[in-house]
Amino acid sequence: MNGYSYDTDDMIFALATPWGTGAIAVIRISGAGCIATLATAFSRPQALLSSGSHTLVHGQLVDPDSTSPIDEVLISVFKEGRGFTGEESLEISCHGSMAGVQSIFRVLANMGMRSAAPGEFTFRAFMHGKMDLTRAEAVMEIVSSQSELAHSLALERLEGHLFALIHEIKLIVLDVMSLVEVQLDYAEDEIAEDVDFPFAAVESASRKIQNLLATYEVGKLYGEGARVVLAGSTNAGKSTLFNLLLRQERSIVSEVHGTTRDFIESKTVLDGIPVRLYDTAGLRDSEDTVEQEGIRRTRRLIEEADLILLMLDGTEHDADSTSRYGDFINDSRCITVWNKTDLTEKPAPKGSFPLSAKRGEGFAALRGEMISRLRKDASRPAEHDVVIESSRQREELQRAADALERAKALAEETVPLDIVAVELGEALEALGTLTGEVASSDILEHIFSGFCVGK
Amino acid sequence: MNGYSYDTDDMIFALATPWGTGAIAVIRISGAGCIATLATAFSRPQALLSSGSHTLVHGQLVDPDSTSPIDEVLISVFKEGRGFTGEESLEISCHGSMAGVQSIFRVLANMGMRSAAPGEFTFRAFMHGKMDLTRAEAVMEIVSSQSELAHSLALERLEGHLFALIHEIKLIVLDVMSLVEVQLDYAEDEIAEDVDFPFAAVESASRKIQNLLATYEVGKLYGEGARVVLAGSTNAGKSTLFNLLLRQERSIVSEVHGTTRDFIESKTVLDGIPVRLYDTAGLRDSEDTVEQEGIRRTRRLIEEADLILLMLDGTEHDADSTSRYGDFINDSRCITVWNKTDLTEKPAPKGSFPLSAKRGEGFAALRGEMISRLRKDASRPAEHDVVIESSRQREELQRAADALERAKALAEETVPLDIVAVELGEALEALGTLTGEVASSDILEHIFSGFCVGK
Repeated sequence: MNGYSYDTDDMIFALATPWGTGAIAVIRISGAGCIATLATAFSRPQALLSSGSHTLVHGQLVDPDSTSPIDEVLISVFKEGRGFTGEESLEISCHGSMAGVQSIFRVLANMGMRSAAPGEFTFRAFMHGKMDLTRAEAVMEIVSSQSELAHSLALERLEGHLFALIHEIKLIVLDVMSLVEVQLDYAEDEIAEDVDFPFAAVESASRKIQNLLATYEVGKLYGEGARVVLAGSTNAGKSTLFNLLLRQERSIVSEVHGTTRDFIESKTVLDGIPVRLYDTAGLRDSEDTVEQEGIRRTRRLIEEADLILLMLDGTEHDADSTSRYGDFINDSRCITVWNKTDLTEKPAPKGSFPLSAKRGEGFAALRGEMISRLRKDASRPAEHDVVIESSRQREELQRAADALERAKALAEETVPLDIVAVELGEALEALGTLTGEVASSDILEHIFSGFCVGK
Repeated sequence: MNGYSYDTDDMIFALATPWGTGAIAVIRISGAGCIATLATAFSRPQALLSSGSHTLVHGQLVDPDSTSPIDEVLISVFKEGRGFTGEESLEISCHGSMAGVQSIFRVLANMGMRSAAPGEFTFRAFMHGKMDLTRAEAVMEIVSSQSELAHSLALERLEGHLFALIHEIKLIVLDVMSLVEVQLDYAEDEIAEDVDFPFAAVESASRKIQNLLATYEVGKLYGEGARVVLAGSTNAGKSTLFNLLLRQERSIVSEVHGTTRDFIESKTVLDGIPVRLYDTAGLRDSEDTVEQEGIRRTRRLIEEADLILLMLDGTEHDADSTSRYGDFINDSRCITVWNKTDLTEKPAPKGSFPLSAKRGEGFAALRGEMISRLRKDASRPAEHDVVIESSRQREELQRAADALERAKALAEETVPLDIVAVELGEALEALGTLTGEVASSDILEHIFSGFCVGK
């Protein structure tokens, strides 16, 4: 672990709650000696020093230099080995004023503590054996989860179900490996043909890995969410549908305006899938430079979309005259919506979804289609399913799967066993990297720096 | 307290930390029976039920209906009489994901708890005698304080220093009152002339009230902050000065863009005074409707400003040709800044502040002038000063002061003592209303509904 830029000898602190005014704010502190250090800035030093782990101490933080009171606080005490990081640590629960938090930061810094880097608390938990890498990643995924189902899937990983599954696979590969090595000890040039190579075990490990790999698309969908763009002319009823989709389930973040007026972004949840919904401006030709910029942005949104809802105004379009939207209609990501069925008798074009956004008629069918398109072939995971979400995990699993396949093929081709052993070693290393048993400082730095500060 | 809309029999819950993604979120729960109720949704019910006050219990929240895990949490336990509200209460420290918080809310609501109204936790603290009204108001002022000094002033009120001062005044008035009442008991028609009216005591109480009243302006300045507008033509160097002012002290909230492009708003702190700084567009005449709207907004900003910095470009203006800014220059809120002294030899107009915003020359003098103008005659309060900030407090103090003045005048005019007693009673009532000993449900509702939820 040499060369890793986080130093675990320091006492570190960070705001663990979001920046902004609230009833309370929580400042996390971790590192050997932090209790004795903070006691010098506390109105009841003895109470703090003598308190057991997992107790709360009420009192005042006081600037040790000026003896001015800083805030009335509750301090949570965690003795070494007992808290999140595994180190001696504290949580200061203070009034949720950012000016107050800044005063406390100033005092902590004056006492020799330093501001924590992103993910540094979780990094310390990992370094002290409180969690493996899959659980550390789950911590971040839980915090950023955007739907209750996404949260529940990440929670399964935090509970160690992914780790347990990988551990199970690793035990199988280790068994194969020891069988191979025992035989290597007996005969230097033993070749696979002469030995008892456990093909069934390798296949069982491969199958388990493939099953996990297959969960990546769905894990990514629930973890990162999907981008859905509403396109079509301004009078087609896009905003009515937009509001209908938002009303359907309570949005976690209500309305987010785009940086320019050319689209509106909102977040919602469709059957557990976090969705970013974009209501775009119309796509007409324009000479106006501002409007051209708007159209350019809309086009980029459409390029990046997972799903496009093309809204046609049934009172304006003929079922046959939709050719000017040909680009969209032929796009596999597009669902064509034939709106305003309450105002027209015209039949909906083939393959389109008839809708009265105003009355809600046809909405259930459209919503069902959206969900099944977003989820593709994957079924909705159950709350207790173990799915992978991070591309790092997918890469390592793929590396393990490839190495096992090569090991099997080599064993079938009757090459010397030590060559087969190299592939098995590669598979084991990939699985070890996944859980963090084998980890370079680069990988760790990459993972933990993606965390938020205070975690 | 009849007719008050908050019911203190319910178990209530609320998010106490700001809404948004963070490392952790804290959910507050208060009300008799909440520990036993939450235990039914906790992986270690016995640990929770048997824990003492001020302890932390680690475990999993579980949906009691589906038995699905909801989150890994730390629960702070406060027994009746021991926590913030004075009731049996809990704080759930969970992962800072809003989806997770919503899952927990759902479970709490299913168990019969209800979402708290704004200020309801503090209201309960008040109802259970954990704090008087001046301290309850200080809780809110601390949370919303925008500078460290404002925070420290509100903290003095929270510590009860304002309450102690008012209590001291009340004791004096009570003494006067009992002296008067004793004499009333002896002679029905006793008139002030014949009795020993303690003028000195009444004057001492009045003086203490007047001293407190005098702190209102400064309390308001530190509590609410000041609005400073930079005006002048676009090339005058407004943005350079704007940045210079922002760099001077670390801003609590860095940059906030106006809803339209016509001004930029930033927050900063000038010698403890929270300041909203506005960099406006130039004020030239325009035919463009969008620009006209911008100018209209700039004019409104200027109307509401506490201080205006009129920037003149020394290389463009003659000292005598500043007549077109006459409206500003004659405004008592205006400081005229003669910028670009590094580029011109022209003398600064009388009364203006020469500045090279680029080089920082003259900045210290300008900043000093800004501070003294904002603070007017008031000196910077010391951290331990007791100042009042709320207009409610000022009104009640004024009512008490007026009643004491009338009592004194009546006593001098030798009217019957029972009439003097009525005025003393009015003063006592005003002081009692201030601390909440005498409080109508209207007043309470008004005060607590201004709080944030979770407090």
